[in-house]
Amino acid sequence: MKLGAIEAGGTKFVMAIGNEQGEISEKMVIPTEHPEITLPKILDFFKNKGIEKLGLGGFGPIDINRNSSTYGQLQKTPKTDWVDYPLGEKLKQELGIPIIIDTDVNVAAMSEAKWGSATDVDSCLYITVGTGIGAGAYFQGKTLKGLSHSEMGHIKVRRHPEDTYEGTCPYHKDCLEGIAAGPSLEKRWGKKGHELADDQKVWELEAYYLAQALTNYIYILSPERIIMGGGVMKQQQLFPLIRKNVLEMLNGYVSSPYLTEKEIDRYIVPPGLTDEAGVKGALYLAMNE
Amino acid sequence: MKLGAIEAGGTKFVMAIGNEQGEISEKMVIPTEHPEITLPKILDFFKNKGIEKLGLGGFGPIDINRNSSTYGQLQKTPKTDWVDYPLGEKLKQELGIPIIIDTDVNVAAMSEAKWGSATDVDSCLYITVGTGIGAGAYFQGKTLKGLSHSEMGHIKVRRHPEDTYEGTCPYHKDCLEGIAAGPSLEKRWGKKGHELADDQKVWELEAYYLAQALTNYIYILSPERIIMGGGVMKQQQLFPLIRKNVLEMLNGYVSSPYLTEKEIDRYIVPPGLTDEAGVKGALYLAMNE
Repeated sequence: MKLGAIEAGGTKFVMAIGNEQGEISEKMVIPTEHPEITLPKILDFFKNKGIEKLGLGGFGPIDINRNSSTYGQLQKTPKTDWVDYPLGEKLKQELGIPIIIDTDVNVAAMSEAKWGSATDVDSCLYITVGTGIGAGAYFQGKTLKGLSHSEMGHIKVRRHPEDTYEGTCPYHKDCLEGIAAGPSLEKRWGKKGHELADDQKVWELEAYYLAQALTNYIYILSPERIIMGGGVMKQQQLFPLIRKNVLEMLNGYVSSPYLTEKEIDRYIVPPGLTDEAGVKGALYLAMNE
Repeated sequence: MKLGAIEAGGTKFVMAIGNEQGEISEKMVIPTEHPEITLPKILDFFKNKGIEKLGLGGFGPIDINRNSSTYGQLQKTPKTDWVDYPLGEKLKQELGIPIIIDTDVNVAAMSEAKWGSATDVDSCLYITVGTGIGAGAYFQGKTLKGLSHSEMGHIKVRRHPEDTYEGTCPYHKDCLEGIAAGPSLEKRWGKKGHELADDQKVWELEAYYLAQALTNYIYILSPERIIMGGGVMKQQQLFPLIRKNVLEMLNGYVSSPYLTEKEIDRYIVPPGLTDEAGVKGALYLAMNE
C-alpha cells in the first residue's frame, strides 16, 4: 500500500510517499508560505500517486481530536496566515483519502520509538528546543493526548536568581519557552546561539532551565528515554550539563538504573534520526491507522 | 469470578472481595502496622474465599514494572518498616494467585474513570493532597507508567514572593509536596488545616501553589478532567480559588471549552467516589487483567 506523509513545520513542509515498511520512495521540501500558495504545491505532489492514506505531523497548536468538527485545523499559531486554517479538512476534500493528524513533536517521538533512539523501550519523550520548545510523549504504542495535545514548553520553571531577562512568550512572558528557546537566548545575550558556543555561562543557565523542565517531565510522565533535538540542542555541550543538573535535582528520589551517573548518558540522548524523523513519523501515523 | 482487592495506604489497608461487575460483597479495614503484623491479617481475610486474582493499589514508591524482579516491592517509603518489603511477592506466594499491582493514585484515577467523576471522558488525572501529594493519570484505558510510576507531587513550582517557609520534603525541601501538603500547612501556620478554615490567606497561598501544579499537568498531560481529593481538599473553598488561578495562569493558551470561566467547574472537580475509590480501583485492576 502506498502512503503519504507530511511534516508541516513553521519554516518548511516535508512531503513523502512511502510504504508500510516505512521506506520512502519520493520526497519533496517546500517553504511554508501563505496557505493559498502552499496548499496547491502539496496537492501537486500527492495527486495521482495512488496513496491510500496520509499522515500529517503538524506545527501547533492544532486540533488533533478526531471527534471535533475542526479536526486538523490550526489554532493560535504565531504564523498568522495559518490561524484557523483547516489544513486537515482541505487535504481530505482534495485528496479524498483519510488524513491522520498529530503534532510534529508527537510524530517525532513515535518515529524515534520505531526507528531512532528509543527502539528498545516502550515509552519516550521527544523534546525540541529551537524557535520554540515543544515535546511529544509516546507511551505503550500511542502518543499522549487528552483535552488537546501537550504544550510542554509552556510550563514554568524557577528563575535563576541572577537572570532577570523578562521572557519572550506572548502568552506567559517567562515560561520555559519564553526564557530558554532560541529567540530568548539571542535576545538575552545579544548574539545567536552558535556565536555563543564558547561562552560557558550561557549554557550553564540554559541547562539549569532545561534540566528543571526534564525533572518535572520525569516526575509527571516517567518516560523510559528522553530525546532532545532542535536547533539549540546542536550545542552538544548542553547534554552533559543537563544530565548533571537532572541528577542533582532528582536527588536520588526516582529509583532507576538510568538515573545514575553511570547510565544517564543512555537516558537523555540526542535524536537517532536526523532530517527524516518528522516525515517518517507521519508515515508511521498513516501505517498504524 | 471472585476477585480480591487491596488499597494499601500508609495509615490503613482496605481489603475487599468483589466480582467482575465491580460489586463488593465483603470488606475489611485494618491499620497499617509492621508488615509482620499486617500480612497475616491480610492472608486471614483472603484465604479460602475462592478469589482467582487480586488487585492491589499501593502507597509508593512501589515497583510496578512487571518485568522487574522486584515487582510489587515497596521502595523508599517514609514508612520505614515497609522499605524494600516485597508485598506483591509475599501475597503471590501465600495466596497462589496472580497479584496485579499499581499505585494508590493510579487505581483511584481508574476508579473515578470507571465509576466516579470522569465516566464521560477518556482520560483523567486524580490528585490527592493530604499527608503527601500524589497523582495518577489514566489515558485511553491505561494508567500512565514508564520508567516507574509518576511522582507528580515532587515537581517544583515558583515560590510566592512573600512565602519564606523552607519546606518539609526530605528529598527536595520546597518541592510542591514540601510546601503544599498537609504537614507543611500545619508547620507554616502553626495549626492544623481544619483549624485554619476561615483564614483566607492560607487558602489563597495553597491555591496559588496547587494551581501552578495543575497548570503544569495540563500543559504536559492534557487530561480531560482533573479530580482533586485528599484531606486538604476537604476545604471546599479551595476549589474556586484553584480554578480562578488556573485560568489566569493558562491565560487562554489552551483552547478548550472546559478551560473557560463558564465550564471550569466541570473540569476541576472533587472525587465522585468516596471511601471506596481506592479499593474499587484495585478491583478494577484485577477485573481488567
